[in-house]
Amino acid sequence: MTEVGRRAIVLLSGGLDSATTLALARSEGFACHALAFAYGQRHEVELAAARRVAAAQGAAELKVVEIDLRTFGGSALTDDLAVPHDRDTSEPGIPLTYVPARNTIFLSYALAWAEVLGAQDLFLGVNAVDYSGYPDCRPAFIEAFQELANLATRAGVEGAAYRIHTPLIDLSKAEIIRTGTALGVDYSITHSCYDPDEAGRACGRCDSCTLRHQGFEQAGVPDPTIYQETSRHEGA
Amino acid sequence: MTEVGRRAIVLLSGGLDSATTLALARSEGFACHALAFAYGQRHEVELAAARRVAAAQGAAELKVVEIDLRTFGGSALTDDLAVPHDRDTSEPGIPLTYVPARNTIFLSYALAWAEVLGAQDLFLGVNAVDYSGYPDCRPAFIEAFQELANLATRAGVEGAAYRIHTPLIDLSKAEIIRTGTALGVDYSITHSCYDPDEAGRACGRCDSCTLRHQGFEQAGVPDPTIYQETSRHEGA
Repeated sequence: MTEVGRRAIVLLSGGLDSATTLALARSEGFACHALAFAYGQRHEVELAAARRVAAAQGAAELKVVEIDLRTFGGSALTDDLAVPHDRDTSEPGIPLTYVPARNTIFLSYALAWAEVLGAQDLFLGVNAVDYSGYPDCRPAFIEAFQELANLATRAGVEGAAYRIHTPLIDLSKAEIIRTGTALGVDYSITHSCYDPDEAGRACGRCDSCTLRHQGFEQAGVPDPTIYQETSRHEGA
Repeated sequence: MTEVGRRAIVLLSGGLDSATTLALARSEGFACHALAFAYGQRHEVELAAARRVAAAQGAAELKVVEIDLRTFGGSALTDDLAVPHDRDTSEPGIPLTYVPARNTIFLSYALAWAEVLGAQDLFLGVNAVDYSGYPDCRPAFIEAFQELANLATRAGVEGAAYRIHTPLIDLSKAEIIRTGTALGVDYSITHSCYDPDEAGRACGRCDSCTLRHQGFEQAGVPDPTIYQETSRHEGA
């Protein structure tokens, strides 16, 4: 018997959050069509992680869309600016690593693919930690995009009701890690670091590494991340 | 004296509507940053027209962003489907040439660039004729995107108020042509046809050619379009 669930688009970066989101979408019975972006970031290692996660979590397929956000500039993740190290991540304000309109662009592509597939469910792994800093991770943004989706598409006009699922939005990193661990997510194959070395090892000092490591500590789960020798953390 | 107006992003396809929109934005004193897309359409001739129009209408610059909507498929403009000829353009319903989520994707890129440039004004040449057929040309869609823009960006959070200008939205093709003609737009360098030949000549039979030709007739302005010999229309 071949069981075919409803289709969903899952945005997959290969990081801890999106891996957990994919596991949650699968656990709800969706056939998951994973979407990753090559967006001029300096770390191709992120895409390699997305491929590993898609395979490990049983995604129906993974598409990688190349988009060139360097055309416009404006972020440490796409320009040749230094990624901030050892920043106090509880500091308010929008981080330097903010990429203009990134989630708007990502969700727009996801919507295009959803319409072609006849899918109405889009999964995005934003969470409370992110939306303290990034405007396009906040619940109000997600709600506005959901409303837009129903106006923007033929399917919406014909009565489809798109739903943007953000199952992590109110979870702390520790809660995300506990959730994923319960679903069998292998976090050793995920990648979160903004500033990895050539071997793909995490720096342990950018915002993303700091939040991830604190999350494992608070969850009481051993941190499986492979860190560079200059990291402040010990890992596998 | 160098006069620098407020900056605006103008989506430019090289067609009649976007050329008129650029002329209107210029006439309001904006420094116009034109944005064109290479999106897997079969007619590179459209981009050549965008370059001609940007130069002729005094755009500050033109950026061309490559996006590959063929990744997802789903439209006569990006797949290898035949473009419909001699269709009754007053027929209700969404045309085959609809591209899923196209204007959502285009406006998302425009928003990213606007944020980097510090621009808050985006111009898009949708009009009444389009929004009878394409969901993402309707006023409700435009309003929803404007709301999204203020939630999606750092500038929005910090108090910027984005405005999506659609100066053609209530105009007929004839009114657009009269408006542009009064502003000195040279329509002979614009391109609207969905199905041009290798020399870039218009087919005269797709929806876009039909609406364009009717517009010139109704405006009482000679149609400067160069048509293929199999066209139903006579042009320059």
